[in-house]
Amino acid sequence: MSLNLVKKSLSLPEHEFNEVLGLGRMKGFKTLIKVSEALERFRKAVVHRIEEAEEVELMDALGRICAEDVKALMDVPPYDRSAVDGYAIIAEDVFSASPMNPIKLKLVGRILAGSTPSTIPRIERGEAVEIMTGAPMPLNANAVVMVEDVKVVENGIEVLKPVHPYRNVSRRGEDFKRGEIVIKRGVRVKPWHIGALASLNIRKLKVLRRPRISVLSTGDELIEFGEELKPGKIINSTKPMLMALLLEEGCVPLDLGIAGDDVDEIHSKILTGLRESDGVIVTGGTSVGVKDLVPEAVKRLGEIVFHGLRMRPGKPTGAAVSAGKPIFMLSGFPVAAAIGFEVLVRPILAHMQRCTIEPRPKIRGIITRRVVNPPNTRSYVRVRVFESDDKVMVEPLRLTGSGILSSLTRGNGLLIIPEELEGYDEGDIVEVELLQPIWRGDEK
Amino acid sequence: MSLNLVKKSLSLPEHEFNEVLGLGRMKGFKTLIKVSEALERFRKAVVHRIEEAEEVELMDALGRICAEDVKALMDVPPYDRSAVDGYAIIAEDVFSASPMNPIKLKLVGRILAGSTPSTIPRIERGEAVEIMTGAPMPLNANAVVMVEDVKVVENGIEVLKPVHPYRNVSRRGEDFKRGEIVIKRGVRVKPWHIGALASLNIRKLKVLRRPRISVLSTGDELIEFGEELKPGKIINSTKPMLMALLLEEGCVPLDLGIAGDDVDEIHSKILTGLRESDGVIVTGGTSVGVKDLVPEAVKRLGEIVFHGLRMRPGKPTGAAVSAGKPIFMLSGFPVAAAIGFEVLVRPILAHMQRCTIEPRPKIRGIITRRVVNPPNTRSYVRVRVFESDDKVMVEPLRLTGSGILSSLTRGNGLLIIPEELEGYDEGDIVEVELLQPIWRGDEK
Repeated sequence: MSLNLVKKSLSLPEHEFNEVLGLGRMKGFKTLIKVSEALERFRKAVVHRIEEAEEVELMDALGRICAEDVKALMDVPPYDRSAVDGYAIIAEDVFSASPMNPIKLKLVGRILAGSTPSTIPRIERGEAVEIMTGAPMPLNANAVVMVEDVKVVENGIEVLKPVHPYRNVSRRGEDFKRGEIVIKRGVRVKPWHIGALASLNIRKLKVLRRPRISVLSTGDELIEFGEELKPGKIINSTKPMLMALLLEEGCVPLDLGIAGDDVDEIHSKILTGLRESDGVIVTGGTSVGVKDLVPEAVKRLGEIVFHGLRMRPGKPTGAAVSAGKPIFMLSGFPVAAAIGFEVLVRPILAHMQRCTIEPRPKIRGIITRRVVNPPNTRSYVRVRVFESDDKVMVEPLRLTGSGILSSLTRGNGLLIIPEELEGYDEGDIVEVELLQPIWRGDEK
Repeated sequence: MSLNLVKKSLSLPEHEFNEVLGLGRMKGFKTLIKVSEALERFRKAVVHRIEEAEEVELMDALGRICAEDVKALMDVPPYDRSAVDGYAIIAEDVFSASPMNPIKLKLVGRILAGSTPSTIPRIERGEAVEIMTGAPMPLNANAVVMVEDVKVVENGIEVLKPVHPYRNVSRRGEDFKRGEIVIKRGVRVKPWHIGALASLNIRKLKVLRRPRISVLSTGDELIEFGEELKPGKIINSTKPMLMALLLEEGCVPLDLGIAGDDVDEIHSKILTGLRESDGVIVTGGTSVGVKDLVPEAVKRLGEIVFHGLRMRPGKPTGAAVSAGKPIFMLSGFPVAAAIGFEVLVRPILAHMQRCTIEPRPKIRGIITRRVVNPPNTRSYVRVRVFESDDKVMVEPLRLTGSGILSSLTRGNGLLIIPEELEGYDEGDIVEVELLQPIWRGDEK
């Protein structure tokens, strides 16, 4: 029986296969775990929370996480008011109205927007009052007919169309009732929340302080971008990308710089990060190799929650906690680090803030060629999404090494293949996370 | 034949029906046009462009629109380098390697990351060099075996697994080739662009200046939020919401305040907006009613491109141009204004900057009840998206007046029904734009 057949019949992932064969000397990952299990363990281990709130001007709350349940202190609208320019009437008067059967009503007054409710008139059957958008409804009136459904005649109007009771009327409290919660703690403030809070005359809002997350890169070969590129050195592109990802998530990124391949230096910088921020991202030095330095340094500071994910790219991803704060051990390769950020950092940021994760734009399309998924692995395939004959096509990119940053800039999407699928066949409909818009002719 | 039957047999929208009946006195919209046609006309009319660039530090370019095609001035990687910690070898030496048939290679050296390519050794058949992630490949070597696939023995290594040529090697220029365009003009800068530009040692980027857009609300009844709410007055919630939407689009919003119901005042404020910014949004006073003031004021400044859309809500939406700059006439009602912003303002902002429109998050789900679409109309139905038994459900909200801002804060999605559909039946699969995340138990 050939080794490949043994492997096939056992149906095990390679590292387990190696363990079965007793290849104990290999420095492979002992236990790769599923992304979902990793996240569940990590969430349990991270007990640190962002709870401190700061009060900001309403407009400055945009995009921040609301820190309190905000209740309406009044009804909105505060009284029944007209939603259109027209004539306040009693709906029952015009139930039979039509262009062929206009109903005449007597015009008894006019209510301007901004009128004081105390001066509001009362109408009786057969009467109408001209009314402006936003103006308080006359007493006894229960609907407004729009200007375009009315013909003005001497001393009155002819209504050409029936209206339901409360048609074109904004009723007191229909938008927000006094005492109702308008925005909950943990909600990211969107423009319509700004509008809703403004309508309640709320000027300031308590929002969570921004999480501070430190980023450290490791590797003797790395230099910072902007420094002189000497032979044999590599510019660190992963750290600026991660700092930009943190900015997009509303965090304050702290730059811990680059540590050389030295456990003491890595340890000391992570320690600084833990003291000054809510969590630390460390990249590089996490692969199981000659330089297994980051896990070594991290073990001195806390407990490793997992190391090694059934994920591609990003297998050497790991995580630890120190005094309840997260330490993310991401790949030094930019693509694997970006996916590690998506898979671990975003959910843990939400967990620490007790808020939801912002959804990513998604699109469905037809895959242009077969892609294969290793058993029990979650794959993040970089794809190019484009339109062809009004169809959305999803083309998996050929160059997809975890160091190939251009797979994220040339491509515009990520196809996530879940653990239980063996892959997709050409022509399958797949759902893709859009990283960049699809270029369409008319939008250029 | 009843009027309803006439109407039905003619299959006309109401305003055309009215025109057919010769109800000429009605002040209804003369010509409602389709959203797509409106946008096409508007794009043609808006010739004003944002072209001025400003140079910013790379990290500050995040989210801005790139103002130039940026070319790589070098290959990335600049030389063939190892992508892992392991042993550089000649792949052909180990094609038959397996745990049962280990291939012994002689260890002839070690290359650290950061080594200078000029000191790089050369290997021959049967030899291997220990190599670190990122280190330049020895001459003649064409693959790297990972540490975990090797057993260290006296004077050498035993390779337990075959490798393809160039396995675990990052080849010169495989990420970016010298002269290649890395980011195009018009692309919104994402974290991976920051990474890619950093890898090319680019410190600064030219980005388009932010568009300046003025916002004016009209209506005697309106007061600004934060002011004392006197009886009969309404707090202007639409303007702060629009300014927040502009901020989200990367614009600088200019607050023109509130104009009373006075054509001269409206005219004068729009004129200020046109002088000081790239376009003006005016809300309210656009319905065809007693106070058709905004179109009157706008006519003095330029040409009305359209007024009245086959859209719900937002029928009274209009647009004009003055010296090629856009004037958006949106509803004073917050929900209709938000949808007018989505339908008109976002595409025209992209048009003026010659960039693409950022995609919105979307989700597919099962609609919980029937919704009906008027003929030839595009409807924006506010919905609540939730999970039930692992299914995504889409519940159209009952309260959906264009003034009901809570339909956007209580709900979390927009269902867009296109013109050609009569609606959806209960149980239909629909696609929804997600305005806010779905709350899931485990993310709380």
